[in-house]
Amino acid sequence: MNYKAVSKILSYVLRLEGILMLAPCIVALIYGEKEGWWYLACAAFCFGISFVFGFAGGKKTEGFFAREGFFVVAMSWILMGVFGAIPFVLTGDIPNFVDALFESISGFTTTGGSILRDVEALSKTSLFWRSFTHWIGGMGVLVLLMAILPLAGSENIFMMRAESTGPQVGKMVPKIRKTAEILYVSYFALTVLEIIMLIAGKVPVFDALTTAFGTAGTGGFAVTNSSIGNYSDYGQIVVAVFMMLFGVNFNLYYLLSVRKIKTALLSEELRYYVGIMLATTLVIAVNIRNIFGSFGVSLRYSFFQVSSLMTSTGFSTYNYNTWPELSKTLLVLVSIIGACAGSTGGGIKVSRFVIMLKCVKREIRSFVNPRTVKQIRMDGTAITREVRSSVKSYMLAYLVIYVVSLIIVSLDGFDFTTNTTAVFATFNNTGPGLNMVGPAGNYADFSILSKIVFIFDMLAGRLELYPMLILFVPGTWKD
Amino acid sequence: MNYKAVSKILSYVLRLEGILMLAPCIVALIYGEKEGWWYLACAAFCFGISFVFGFAGGKKTEGFFAREGFFVVAMSWILMGVFGAIPFVLTGDIPNFVDALFESISGFTTTGGSILRDVEALSKTSLFWRSFTHWIGGMGVLVLLMAILPLAGSENIFMMRAESTGPQVGKMVPKIRKTAEILYVSYFALTVLEIIMLIAGKVPVFDALTTAFGTAGTGGFAVTNSSIGNYSDYGQIVVAVFMMLFGVNFNLYYLLSVRKIKTALLSEELRYYVGIMLATTLVIAVNIRNIFGSFGVSLRYSFFQVSSLMTSTGFSTYNYNTWPELSKTLLVLVSIIGACAGSTGGGIKVSRFVIMLKCVKREIRSFVNPRTVKQIRMDGTAITREVRSSVKSYMLAYLVIYVVSLIIVSLDGFDFTTNTTAVFATFNNTGPGLNMVGPAGNYADFSILSKIVFIFDMLAGRLELYPMLILFVPGTWKD
Repeated sequence: MNYKAVSKILSYVLRLEGILMLAPCIVALIYGEKEGWWYLACAAFCFGISFVFGFAGGKKTEGFFAREGFFVVAMSWILMGVFGAIPFVLTGDIPNFVDALFESISGFTTTGGSILRDVEALSKTSLFWRSFTHWIGGMGVLVLLMAILPLAGSENIFMMRAESTGPQVGKMVPKIRKTAEILYVSYFALTVLEIIMLIAGKVPVFDALTTAFGTAGTGGFAVTNSSIGNYSDYGQIVVAVFMMLFGVNFNLYYLLSVRKIKTALLSEELRYYVGIMLATTLVIAVNIRNIFGSFGVSLRYSFFQVSSLMTSTGFSTYNYNTWPELSKTLLVLVSIIGACAGSTGGGIKVSRFVIMLKCVKREIRSFVNPRTVKQIRMDGTAITREVRSSVKSYMLAYLVIYVVSLIIVSLDGFDFTTNTTAVFATFNNTGPGLNMVGPAGNYADFSILSKIVFIFDMLAGRLELYPMLILFVPGTWKD
Repeated sequence: MNYKAVSKILSYVLRLEGILMLAPCIVALIYGEKEGWWYLACAAFCFGISFVFGFAGGKKTEGFFAREGFFVVAMSWILMGVFGAIPFVLTGDIPNFVDALFESISGFTTTGGSILRDVEALSKTSLFWRSFTHWIGGMGVLVLLMAILPLAGSENIFMMRAESTGPQVGKMVPKIRKTAEILYVSYFALTVLEIIMLIAGKVPVFDALTTAFGTAGTGGFAVTNSSIGNYSDYGQIVVAVFMMLFGVNFNLYYLLSVRKIKTALLSEELRYYVGIMLATTLVIAVNIRNIFGSFGVSLRYSFFQVSSLMTSTGFSTYNYNTWPELSKTLLVLVSIIGACAGSTGGGIKVSRFVIMLKCVKREIRSFVNPRTVKQIRMDGTAITREVRSSVKSYMLAYLVIYVVSLIIVSLDGFDFTTNTTAVFATFNNTGPGLNMVGPAGNYADFSILSKIVFIFDMLAGRLELYPMLILFVPGTWKD
């Protein structure tokens, strides 16, 4: 392990977190909350520790490979989570450290599952920080770093590969740094657009900001106990549409910006994403029509919930735990499929899901006509054997982590539905599951051990497994 | 599709079923039940239809490939199931045809899930036939055919591959026919041994026979409403041990018979199989010790249930649905892992599970040290890329069938735990799941649509997916 290069990057990451922690300080200033002082102190603490890492780090960038990329990404996210949790503890908003860490990691990984029973009891400052972590984590901390810092090319490529989502890294332009820049500009622009549209719909500025952060990162932390349920129909529809937009591969926004509109709209992943979302919305709307009387209203509730769960956001406008079994099952399933690769959303990603389906179809055909088996294609290009193999391996590793987590969590003795969906909800970075962890529930009652498992799952889900898994291989730590 | 060769084999299969259906006639004779006449009529009907297929069939054995092998195996099992269901309807024991088909397919596929609320209300004749289907299906109908008929070599190899379980076909001896013979001799011998040991423990002869059939095929149909719960401790232990024995790869019994004892006992799959079973038994025994007072008793109950579910038998000595969540979750998980390849047990098979784990481990290591990645080995031999790829594809196809089934079954509106475990219990050929389909429950209340899905899943699970899946590819049916 190239500890010098890793330390250098961790030093940058902490400095960045220190700077970002100044945002809640401004909120404290506006609302006159004394909690701001703690956030200021934590920002200073981040700077301090950043210098320690800076001393340990060096300029040695040769010897930076996939292993280093994975390692530094995993460590960055763990560090960000730990330091992000400290102000929750110090302000007394979440006194228990494991709970605070759960909340912080749930924020950065854009999971949005909470251990809080009463969100509204928090200070505005902490509420802001909590939602802001969604925005920071959504597009990726290291992607942000790459966009603003001139790092070495080898560092960039391996960190990009480790932090971005989906089976293939989509470089929009040859330079990684430029790619990172484009990503953050689109991300920022879309967020601002949502804030404006929410404020135009008379949503209070504080709510508009935090809700937009939660939408942009596809996180799902809300600032009221009823999530998005108390907003106007207009507000709910704006959030639903933006959740869907943030679940789209950001490459497509780049393509749109350079007027390759046809290429963007013909993207196979996009068509599957929209297709699955609309089909599920329709089936659920029919399934729940009796609850809402009119089909139009049930369609709105259904679209909101499908958009929220498929993009792994986790906002809710209704306690869908009371919906019929078919609707609940479909919601859990779309949350596993997840959003598009290269978006801020979680789950296994639509492109992986589609490649998986195509592999199965190809395998079946190969038994019928062994001599006429065709290449698997996405958007007209052949999917290489490496990508196919990586998708399959990903699914196996996913299953292994899922099963081990489920066994540990079941020690707490909650019901099977709660356990199975709680692991899915954290692992896919969705947030809510069914029963006890349904939209009206939370993760407060789980044991510390289960919470640690969830924390691991949230990180593993956000970083697409391997960065977290290599930490268990002794060889990773060798100098 | 080589319909002539297929018809010829289907004709043999039906004739075989006709012969096997004479067994319950003998039972009827002994107990003086008039239901025997219906079974005799059905046997005659089997012969009649067999002649029709015989006329359509021909000697044309060239052009018999994997596709034909899969097709004829799928068709044989469907036919066996349909014809096996008819006497249930005619005797009035199970008047509804879909229910009768569910029960018959559940029998042949050695699932053991039932739509009967009261097993004891059945005639002895039907009870015998129901258990006998387990024995017939356990080692495979076509394997039996191969053992007694001189079929062409190409037919044998492709049917063997389609019907036997596990990722690789284990030929014990170069000749497939000889292999089939050895399999059935060991199967028969072990069954007889269990019958003798049960009768020695004062289990009534009828119960000993039917229980041994249910154990040998790892089926799980019992002839009393309390499954095996009313037998003596000795009887329960005999059944538990034999379930475990029938879950072992039958190749190992052949190795033992030719005195290659060390090779047999060092089998990696065997060690994992025994290891997983004993570890799970121990954890559950600790988890349920408070229910039974003494650790010894809880160990006995635990071993019985783990052996029963891991081998996909499904017998029970206690309503484990009332056990703590950890125990229930572990039981569901071992039922998914299943028994050894080349055994009569279901699930994804221990060898597939182990290859899967090794693939995941290898993938993780490859990120840490890309240049020192080792071959995956089982029993010292390298696992080829084809086998690795087929294991991964199998898992993907498994997931696809599972998810589609779950969606359809959830239409019935039963709870999430019932639905998720009911699909697992039929797909893995286990029988009981949790909640409504727990050991004290049954499948009676599901809709016809769900029952048809379960029937498909039982067949797909027993035949390891592809024979059933290719039926949906139009190319399969082309002449």
